This record gives sequence, structure tokens and C-alpha cells, in this order.
Amino acid sequence: MSIAVSPNAPTHIPDMPAIAGVKLATAAAGIRYKGRTDVLLAVMDKGTAVAGVFTQSKCPSAPVEWCRAKLARGKSSKAGFARALVVNSGNANAFTGKTGRQATTLTASIAARALGCSPHEVFLASTGVIGEPLDASKFNGVLATLAERAAPGEWINAAKAIMTTDTFPKVATATVKLGKTRVTINGMAKGAGMIMPDMATMLAFVFTDAPIAAGALQSLLKGGVEDTFNAVTIDGDTSTSDTLLAFATGAAAASGAPKISRAGDPRLKPFAKAFRAVLADLAEQVARDGEGARKLVEIIVEGATSKKSARRIAISVANSPLVKTAIAGEDANWGRVVMAVGKAGEPANRDRLSISFNGVRVASRGARDPSYDEAEVSSAMKNPKIQIRIALGLGKGRDRVLTCDLTREYIAINGDYRS
Amino acid sequence: MSIAVSPNAPTHIPDMPAIAGVKLATAAAGIRYKGRTDVLLAVMDKGTAVAGVFTQSKCPSAPVEWCRAKLARGKSSKAGFARALVVNSGNANAFTGKTGRQATTLTASIAARALGCSPHEVFLASTGVIGEPLDASKFNGVLATLAERAAPGEWINAAKAIMTTDTFPKVATATVKLGKTRVTINGMAKGAGMIMPDMATMLAFVFTDAPIAAGALQSLLKGGVEDTFNAVTIDGDTSTSDTLLAFATGAAAASGAPKISRAGDPRLKPFAKAFRAVLADLAEQVARDGEGARKLVEIIVEGATSKKSARRIAISVANSPLVKTAIAGEDANWGRVVMAVGKAGEPANRDRLSISFNGVRVASRGARDPSYDEAEVSSAMKNPKIQIRIALGLGKGRDRVLTCDLTREYIAINGDYRS
Repeated sequence: MSIAVSPNAPTHIPDMPAIAGVKLATAAAGIRYKGRTDVLLAVMDKGTAVAGVFTQSKCPSAPVEWCRAKLARGKSSKAGFARALVVNSGNANAFTGKTGRQATTLTASIAARALGCSPHEVFLASTGVIGEPLDASKFNGVLATLAERAAPGEWINAAKAIMTTDTFPKVATATVKLGKTRVTINGMAKGAGMIMPDMATMLAFVFTDAPIAAGALQSLLKGGVEDTFNAVTIDGDTSTSDTLLAFATGAAAASGAPKISRAGDPRLKPFAKAFRAVLADLAEQVARDGEGARKLVEIIVEGATSKKSARRIAISVANSPLVKTAIAGEDANWGRVVMAVGKAGEPANRDRLSISFNGVRVASRGARDPSYDEAEVSSAMKNPKIQIRIALGLGKGRDRVLTCDLTREYIAINGDYRS
Repeated sequence: MSIAVSPNAPTHIPDMPAIAGVKLATAAAGIRYKGRTDVLLAVMDKGTAVAGVFTQSKCPSAPVEWCRAKLARGKSSKAGFARALVVNSGNANAFTGKTGRQATTLTASIAARALGCSPHEVFLASTGVIGEPLDASKFNGVLATLAERAAPGEWINAAKAIMTTDTFPKVATATVKLGKTRVTINGMAKGAGMIMPDMATMLAFVFTDAPIAAGALQSLLKGGVEDTFNAVTIDGDTSTSDTLLAFATGAAAASGAPKISRAGDPRLKPFAKAFRAVLADLAEQVARDGEGARKLVEIIVEGATSKKSARRIAISVANSPLVKTAIAGEDANWGRVVMAVGKAGEPANRDRLSISFNGVRVASRGARDPSYDEAEVSSAMKNPKIQIRIALGLGKGRDRVLTCDLTREYIAINGDYRS
């Protein structure tokens, strides 16, 4: 299996500043892989608020159920707090039944013991093969060592430890003013199939020193995910393990940052924008690293009857194997785009439909564009980024989804693998 | 591009008997392909009843709109009648705007002139590239010649003329008693992507000499399609052109077959069963000829809360690129099946879920089956037919869907193509 870095990888990995109140450490615990790190421990200061969104799968992994339960607990009495995040790659601890629940309990108590906190303050995420029991006793010793070694500057190593079929580590950072104080947002993600429970899954973790209460953080996360992670699809397959957690240590309060308890607080606006930009950056990196992908594809649908309708049409186009294989072949095959619009089940009128590839209009008002020029279109399709713009001409609904092309390498990565 | 016959092709092509009242002829009209036939004319005797079901696409092709209009016209006053069916391959006449509508009108009038009938009695279907204007003047002369040459024994040639990326012609036949008279049902189909508007599309035509009124025929068709053509998916992509038409000449009335006016008529029962078997046979052949496919895959979902819920779960599994690539790799990757069940959005409980591949149970009650034997499973996966049985343990809902694996050849067929 090829492990060459994706041709769509960002050319530049940002310098990741420290986040006051967060320390990281990684280790090779031998969960499944050899010769690489596979465990990440993030240690947070007391009082760190936590929020999370998870897979919509009806068969979620044991760590997803664990995190959901901890957050729900937080909601019922007071805002949720976190002291630690433990992530492992190599084993998703999904479809592992009672053994899986025991593994999450054991992992959390090992971490809690190492850090002197409650297991309820430990959040968990796992990615890798599913159905294999996760031997959490491997964390014994390892987590205690990591707790001692944890340091503020380990962001890239952390992003590497959570990779599975990813070809590059995914990090993003932003600094922004909250009141008059500079605060920092750091994020990392992994995921290369939109989501595939066996060799990949989308995990993302965002950390900030801003003093934001759990409820407000949850609102930011829910609002931010809609047009970022939820607008990316590699193959339409939803993992049992998708997890996005946000942690706010509040350390910046010491330098005067105002404590934010409501997402609607006007002082939060610039922060919210920067937070969303970090999510968008990470989500785009997931699309860029789509398994076997050679092209990043942006689908813009406008003129739909609503944003929701535009989203459904964009997703239908983005998940169409025929559209994705055409892009892999550098073929501006708008006929397949029409097909995918038509099958979405949303209002669409063939006679008003216009389609362009990278700014070159190929179809307008129900037929091939009169100015269609094959040479111009072919040249546009050679670009490593392909933008498909679909104008429905019905209303003001607009949306955008990112995806990638579908190549032989996707089949090789997913079809040649033998468990 | 490989044009080798699919390894899943039926080993035997049935002898297709004549259907009294139906004559067929094919020609090479040079629509797009060279050195092969691309037009089929079926001529039916006066009084032939017609029924049809079509793509759910919101952007249907011009021939689909033509047929729908003709059938609707029939419904309003009296049962619909047909005298001719004209099918071409090479050009789908889809997304061709006003030109497309003009092409259908012209084709129908050329056929009507050749046969001395009304254009309203001419039914049309087209498959091939979309967005290209169809030059219907090419049918001038050709259809008149075909009308003269039309003969009762041309079934295999007819099935060949409508092929696009199909690797074998698809025909099926049945004889059954209606009252005390033997009647015959012949069908043909094409389709190799479930449906792809560019190089393929699903078209099927069924003919019988049974005297069945259009309304009853329409009911038979609607009822029959649900568990046959609507339960097959190659890639989840729905064509703009999917068309299934049924024609009943009624010629068997002369030998004493009773005239059937209602689908509920008890005398119709054996016929309805045979009719459904012909549809099921054709639909399975479409799955067997899935582009690039090496394996026929049957997904059985049982224990769902309803048949509808079972169907949605089965379709989710059948369309999952990760499940399909795993099968191509002969990997009994039940983790991906769990993922696809989970993402379907239907009631499912991980802790009750059991999954088997070709009769070997690999997962039960939320975890790997205790008796899991890798060698046994691997051996089962080498079979050219793979049955995935998913037991949800929730209710009595059951359904079955056919699909195929997803191979590099699918990408080659659809990605290497340049328009």
C-alpha cells in the first residue's frame, strides 16, 4: 500500500504555539502498528471546559458512548469539565460489546490514576480496526509515563500519533482577541476516508486558553461544525467513531480575558470566527487527504430553494461515484453532475440548470453551453483543485461541500487490504 | 477499455420464443458507435396495452418525458395503447432542452409514418451520452426499412442493439397458463452501472401475448418492480433515463386466454408470478453485469422494524464503497457492514446485531462471533456470489437487495473515459 504523501497536502505546516493549560505527550504502545506512536495523552489544567459532537451512527463505538455519557452528565448539573484526553490509533474499540465498555472504563481509570483526577474527567477517542477487542491494559504504565513527560510543544507529534491511513498530520492554529487579551486556538484532526471504521475515521480535537464555559463552547462547536466537518465527504461512509471535542482551559483569564458563559456574548464574535476558521482548515485538510485522492473538489450549489436543499444536492454530487471517477479522469462530465442533481430528490428544473467547472460554464438552461470549448474545459480540469458550480435558478439557497476524486488508489487502499 | 464478458454472466442464454403480435428489427444507424447495431424497432399489433415505470430523477431525459406524457394521456380517457417502441443506444437525449423534445417528436412521427399509426402510439427510450443533441433525422429511412424487416425471432439481436457498457445481452422468458391458455412473457434489459447517464442507464422492456388491459398491466409493473429492479444497485447513481415498459399484445385471446381488466383478477395469479420472475431475472443480470464487477452480492436484512427499514439498511450496505471494495478484496470486513448499518439512520441496536457472509457467522450480539474462524471465512469469500445476511433482532422486517463489488475496473471504465 502506498504511503506517499497526498499531492494535495498543504505545502506548509504551521508553527503550533503552546496553549496555556494544555500539555501533550505521545508513545508507541503497540496497539496495532509497529515502529510508530499510537497513543496521545492531552493533559488539561483544572477547570477546563469541554464540548463535543459525535457520529450520527446508530452503532457508535465504545469511546463515543463514553464521551456522550460524560457530556450528558455535565449538562444535567453543571457545565462539563475535562482533565485529560486519551486517543489511540490502531483499534477503534467499536462493535466490541461489553469488552469495549470495560476497555473504556479501564483506560479512563488508568489515566485518572496517573493524573489524580476523576475518570469522569477523562475523554476518550479510538480509531483503527473495528471488532477487535482493545487491550486497555497496554495503557498501564504508558499513561503514567506520558503524564510525566507531557509538554506544551508537542502538537505535530500529537497529530502524528492519531493518524491511520492519513498521509500527513493535520493541524491548524489561530490567535484572536477575546476582549483585549490575545487567546490561541489549536486544532488537530485525522481522517482520510470520510470515514471508514476499519482503517480510518474522522477525529478532531480543538484546544483554547480562552475562558469559555462548556455550554457556550458546545454552541460554538455545533454551529461551527455545520459548514466545516459536516460539509466534507470522502466516500459517504460514516464512521462509528467520528468525534470532535473542544477544550477551553480558561488560562487566558489570568491575563484579563473575559469569562464567557453564553455563545451569544458579543465579545465572542471574533473568537467564534477564528474558531470556525480552524475547524474549516482542518476539515479541508481531511478532504485533501482523501484516500487515493489526487484532486480537491469543491461543490457549490446556488439558486436552490433553501440552504438545506442546496446541501442535499451538493452532497449527492459529492458522493456520486460517477462524478468522482470523471474528475479523476479529468473529464468535465457535466452529464453526471445533472444525474446527481436529479437523483437528490430536491427541487430542480433541468431547463434552468447551469453548471461550470473551474469557472468555465459547460451547461446552461437545460443544454450544453453554446460557447462550450472542449480545449478550454480540458485545460481547466487539469487543475489539482476542481470547483463545480451548480446554479439551479430557483431561489436563494446556497451551500458548499468539499470532497475529492475517486481513483484506483482508493480501491487499492480499501480493497487490497485483508484483515 | 476492457470489453471482456463479465465473469458473472449467466452461463446460458435462453431460447427466446416468439410473442404473437410482436416483431423486432435492429439496425446500425451510426448514432455514436461504429460497427454495431444501435437502433431497435419493436412493432406491436393493434390493441397492444402498454404500461411503464420511470426514473425518479428530477432531471429526466426527453424520451422519459415523452413516454410519461403518452401514458398519462391513456389514463385520462382509456387504457394506453402502443404500436411501436423505438430504442437507440449511443445518445441518451437527456439534458438536451428544446432540441431534445424536438428529437422525440421527430422520431415518433418517422416511426408513425413507417407503421401507419399515430405518433401517440410510439414509445421511445434512449441511452448513451447525455447533453449531446440527438440527430433524429438519422432515423429517416432507417425506421421504414426496419418496419419492413421486423420479424418475431430477433430477441437476442434486439437485446444487443440496446447495450452500452453491458458485457452481455440480457434476456429472460417464461411461459405460463392464463386460464387454460399458454401465454408467453419475454423481457430484455440493459444496464451496467446501476445507472449512469453517460455510458449506461437501465432500460428494460417486457412483452407478452396475454390480453391484459393497460391499467392491470401498470399495477403488475408497479408491484413487480419493487423487489426486482428497485432492489438492485450498482453504484447508487440514478440515471436520467431509467425506463421499464411492458407491452401486452393480447394475441393469446384468439387461443382462448381470458381478457384481464383488473390486476386483482384471481386468474392472473400464475401470470403475475411469472411476470415478476422475468423482472427478477433481468434485474439480477443487471447486477451481474455491474461495471467492473467480479462478484454478485446479495444483501439480506432481517429482524428490522419494517420492510421499509430493512430496505434502507440493505441499500446503505449495498452502496457503501467501503463494503464494496472489501468484497472486491475478498475480505469479510463485517466492521464496514456495521458502519453501513449504523449510517442508514434506521433503528439498529449494536448489541443485537449479527452478520454472516455466505452462511458463516462472523459477528453476533455486538461483537465478533466467538466461533470466528479466519480460514473458514476467507474460503467463503472466494465464492463469486457473496451473500451478506444481517440480523437486527428488532422485529419482523425483511428485505433483499442485489449489488456487486467495486473494483479498479469500475474506476477504469468510468474514470479513464474522456468525452
